[in-house]
Amino acid sequence: MRRQPLVSRERFLKNFADLARIGATPEGLNREAGSAAFFEARDFLKTLMEKNGLATRVDAAGNLFGVLEGRDPEKKRRRILSGSHLDSVPNGGVYDGPLGILSALEAVCAIRDGGYENRHSLEIAAFNAEEGGPLGGTFGSRVFSGVLKAEDVPEGALVRYGMNLDALLGAKIDPGDYRASLELHIEQGPVLWNEKKQIGVPTGIVGISRHRVRVAGTANHAGTTPMKDRRDAMKTAAKIINDWFAWVEGHNGDEDFVCNVGTFEISPGHVSIVPACVEFILEIRSLSRDVMSEVAGRFRAVAMCQYGCEVSVETIGEKQPVALDASVISTICTVCDECGMRYRKMPSGASHDSSPIARVMPAGMIFVPSVKGVSHSKEEFTPEDDMIRGAECLMRAMVRLDES
Amino acid sequence: MRRQPLVSRERFLKNFADLARIGATPEGLNREAGSAAFFEARDFLKTLMEKNGLATRVDAAGNLFGVLEGRDPEKKRRRILSGSHLDSVPNGGVYDGPLGILSALEAVCAIRDGGYENRHSLEIAAFNAEEGGPLGGTFGSRVFSGVLKAEDVPEGALVRYGMNLDALLGAKIDPGDYRASLELHIEQGPVLWNEKKQIGVPTGIVGISRHRVRVAGTANHAGTTPMKDRRDAMKTAAKIINDWFAWVEGHNGDEDFVCNVGTFEISPGHVSIVPACVEFILEIRSLSRDVMSEVAGRFRAVAMCQYGCEVSVETIGEKQPVALDASVISTICTVCDECGMRYRKMPSGASHDSSPIARVMPAGMIFVPSVKGVSHSKEEFTPEDDMIRGAECLMRAMVRLDES
Repeated sequence: MRRQPLVSRERFLKNFADLARIGATPEGLNREAGSAAFFEARDFLKTLMEKNGLATRVDAAGNLFGVLEGRDPEKKRRRILSGSHLDSVPNGGVYDGPLGILSALEAVCAIRDGGYENRHSLEIAAFNAEEGGPLGGTFGSRVFSGVLKAEDVPEGALVRYGMNLDALLGAKIDPGDYRASLELHIEQGPVLWNEKKQIGVPTGIVGISRHRVRVAGTANHAGTTPMKDRRDAMKTAAKIINDWFAWVEGHNGDEDFVCNVGTFEISPGHVSIVPACVEFILEIRSLSRDVMSEVAGRFRAVAMCQYGCEVSVETIGEKQPVALDASVISTICTVCDECGMRYRKMPSGASHDSSPIARVMPAGMIFVPSVKGVSHSKEEFTPEDDMIRGAECLMRAMVRLDES
Repeated sequence: MRRQPLVSRERFLKNFADLARIGATPEGLNREAGSAAFFEARDFLKTLMEKNGLATRVDAAGNLFGVLEGRDPEKKRRRILSGSHLDSVPNGGVYDGPLGILSALEAVCAIRDGGYENRHSLEIAAFNAEEGGPLGGTFGSRVFSGVLKAEDVPEGALVRYGMNLDALLGAKIDPGDYRASLELHIEQGPVLWNEKKQIGVPTGIVGISRHRVRVAGTANHAGTTPMKDRRDAMKTAAKIINDWFAWVEGHNGDEDFVCNVGTFEISPGHVSIVPACVEFILEIRSLSRDVMSEVAGRFRAVAMCQYGCEVSVETIGEKQPVALDASVISTICTVCDECGMRYRKMPSGASHDSSPIARVMPAGMIFVPSVKGVSHSKEEFTPEDDMIRGAECLMRAMVRLDES
């Protein structure tokens, strides 16, 4: 039997601290795709990978990869992929993304140093532009997976980022070259922290649909127009949103879905003018395609009870839920059981690089706790013990996948 | 008995058309206080007044006056004032304000040409900056009335408009020099138009109070935060506004007040972030001080039922209702009866130059219909017959006040 490798707490934390400094500002981490800080961080990682004996490459989407070759002539052709994204949101935290890259690097280093002879090649990925912006979310991993379509990419964005569409379409990998993918990420929610769990094992990544609601009334002088003569878009919008949340409270006991109204625009937006128009967006997320469609239909029904204004609902975006691989999930759970890690299965309410990747190869994810569920903020925090435990879990899962 | 003067339809419409051209753009009238168009219009009016034999002056607030002296040595010391404002909102209409000035000018010209020997001096006013902006609404008439306090005027605004505070405070008139004030204005609401009335006789000008509501929740990832763990400022704000309008519908059968939620800001305002904060402003208008205070108290009670977020309500502005003068109102009604004009008494839901003026002298107003109630828009429209009828009503009321 092969020796069980051990992760190095010291090496991991040093790498983590070094990377976290690149793009750090008093307002949080500013390492958006295309920024100087992003390229500096990628150069740092590339050097770090090479120092640790990995063969590196950067693809047309700006993704960085480092490979430790496998020892088995047949199996080494099917890589085990692990990584996450290197870019941050503006004023973000240092855990969201990089933790998955550095855990993968630590796992590979531990495997190599521990004398474990991996049969499959192990590939670490640092994806570009997961966080959205002009290129759209999970950009790097969509290019990698070949999920990206020519029409998905705004022309202006390519020019801005100095990218070439043909090269992007040519950068898709052959899924036959991959055994599986494992991504470690912070939960970005409060569930593990609230329940004092150490590891989350996502069973899938929720689908997201977005619906733009437009309520059109009539602008009027708010002093001289009798109340009974008004077609007040604000009043109608408030009624729709209030009725909607009341319905949700009554019909979502199991939290089969979540939804949010995060944008709201009123025009003309003057204190003394009855609002002519309100636009807001309802976002719905669920692991179940059926639930998403049923909830969207129900919302449409609530919104279309017009209350005196004209109401339209337009679906402006839809990502289907992604199921993660049952055998990879089971491998992670087995590792947690073996090591006595307190874990729970759960949905991933956020999108991840694993969303496009899971469409082309068996994929799994490992969540570590986010204190108070905070993310996309400089207050984002995961204690060191939780980080190390995550890296340990990831390494053991990689070894199990390598052995199976 | 003196001869009854007659207004000249031709002269009035020519003056109206000439003035309406100054500041006209395809988007509407742009003749804001301080603009080149405003000064051009004021010069045009000044010349027009002088051509018609009036003695003109411009005060420190930029208001223009023209006086036709009275023939009675005693009575001429107590002027009858009539006019309105010369400035417009951005992209406004050509009736709001100028109609009152040109009706007053026409009345005075008709009186002079008709051989009617006015005992009181007749003063036409073209007020500056009624429409708000940096100086605050009804600026010119507040200076004129002496209602303006030093602390009402933002320092920067004076510099911007090249004005001097001492001169402004010195520009207040002595109310003892005035017999009464009469302002003709478009209704800016749909009541006369809906009811096919020709003249509106305001009994008072509504008071206005504004209340800033702040709903503070917690920003969270809208995918990863369970619904039950959210403190969603949007959800709470929608509930407050919806509950409020439901209360209003049940308790305002007589339309004793009107109210509006015309501004609404959500932060951080991202489709995938549970809103941390919503701010909106409720405006309440009523002729009754008691109703205003009761309604504000009731709103506060509805808003403070917190529903999970922190809610604060701050009163950010309060103007008391203004009663117009009973004898002036009665004079206007008598004129309407004499001439067979279809009229109704009504509140003025909008503020006017008569608001500050009524605090220092007997004041009345005459409304003419606004087609479909539209104002503050290039679509603002009052048919010629309604304008002429208004000028006729104004002239006859001036004569009656002069005789009484």
